[in-house]
Amino acid sequence: MSAGLEAGALIEIFVSPPAAERYDADLQAARTSGVPVRSADERALASLSETVTPQGIVAVARIPAADLADVPKPRLVAVLHEAQDPGNAGTVIRTADAAGADAVLLTKGSVDPWNGKCVRGSAGSIFHLPVITGVAAEDALTALQRAGCQVLATSGTAQRSLDIVLASGDLARPTAWIFGNEAHGLPPDLLAAADQQVRVPIRGRAESLNLAGAATVCLYASAWAQDWAVRRDGEVRP
Amino acid sequence: MSAGLEAGALIEIFVSPPAAERYDADLQAARTSGVPVRSADERALASLSETVTPQGIVAVARIPAADLADVPKPRLVAVLHEAQDPGNAGTVIRTADAAGADAVLLTKGSVDPWNGKCVRGSAGSIFHLPVITGVAAEDALTALQRAGCQVLATSGTAQRSLDIVLASGDLARPTAWIFGNEAHGLPPDLLAAADQQVRVPIRGRAESLNLAGAATVCLYASAWAQDWAVRRDGEVRP
Repeated sequence: MSAGLEAGALIEIFVSPPAAERYDADLQAARTSGVPVRSADERALASLSETVTPQGIVAVARIPAADLADVPKPRLVAVLHEAQDPGNAGTVIRTADAAGADAVLLTKGSVDPWNGKCVRGSAGSIFHLPVITGVAAEDALTALQRAGCQVLATSGTAQRSLDIVLASGDLARPTAWIFGNEAHGLPPDLLAAADQQVRVPIRGRAESLNLAGAATVCLYASAWAQDWAVRRDGEVRP
Repeated sequence: MSAGLEAGALIEIFVSPPAAERYDADLQAARTSGVPVRSADERALASLSETVTPQGIVAVARIPAADLADVPKPRLVAVLHEAQDPGNAGTVIRTADAAGADAVLLTKGSVDPWNGKCVRGSAGSIFHLPVITGVAAEDALTALQRAGCQVLATSGTAQRSLDIVLASGDLARPTAWIFGNEAHGLPPDLLAAADQQVRVPIRGRAESLNLAGAATVCLYASAWAQDWAVRRDGEVRP
């Protein structure tokens, strides 16, 4: 809730008397920011909430508008292609935020990131960075390449592993990672449109990482490579 | 199921006629290995299964015995302290396998990793590496240190970030990572018992990564550092 408040996205808050005590500091902050706080009974709040154990507080938020044009010179972007699981999408948004990404893009055909499960999975991060939806994958890749990003597509059968790409220095460049959905991976046309196909290395006998795991490894590898480049050069590269 | 079969852990399999067609290759492999395959109707199988949409097949497996003594010279170990969420524990077991860890240890007071949700979350990896339970955290850390591991404890307030530890070369050493549970983190006595406290770097405005995300970043950072050390030296260090 505090992330939504900081983003100026909250419209109003409904809270039960017991929850009002627990969330006193948050509610004070909301009132100070001009967000109306209304009392409601537990049963009404439970009917507004989707969770099995509602917390006695519901915030109504406006969905922030987000467009690729808002991030003219991205250094790190996560693209989810036809992501279906809202929990996974939320976790990737949280991880992308933690890795310092400039935006997350869910291609047309993906789950709605404003699905409650995704919002909760993002742990507030959905309000921290632009989350762009409704763009066809091909258009998104073209736009990101025009904006100066190399597009790296993950594939379990790619020849180059992330180890090699990380050691090569390639990851220091502005990068958009595109991740396929868990069931089907990425289709051949998107793999072909990418600048490189990259395999997340599997050292043991696991068949793969899950989507969120693969995204975590790739995004943090990029963040490290970009940081190292900055330290080596003593300045931030464009 | 195939991971359980390869590990020699399967005792018997119950399958419905429609599922028997879908899993024909797996069932052939099971019969060849001497695992009895028994027919059962969908309703009986649904009552054996915990999932909402049962797949028409249930395998009964023995839990492999696992002890720290089984991994006398560990290079990479993941320790979960009082992990409570079976889905998280399963994901960490999968990630640890993918990062090439030698074992996963869940300290006394953790969720049972043989909980169905954890087994499914591990995507077979629970049969790939020793998953050790029932050891008090202090005893586990002492045993791992005696076995030659440095113990790195994750803490959101640690002074040293993983970036620095990775750049320092410290991660090339045999390492046991210990991760606290999502609600409480690690208690002061375990933080004090570790050789180093390490913070997973957060670049954006996310408050933290979730447990599985933090474990993924730390375990892959260790795997990279150990690989780089091997390449630099031209030989595998003990």
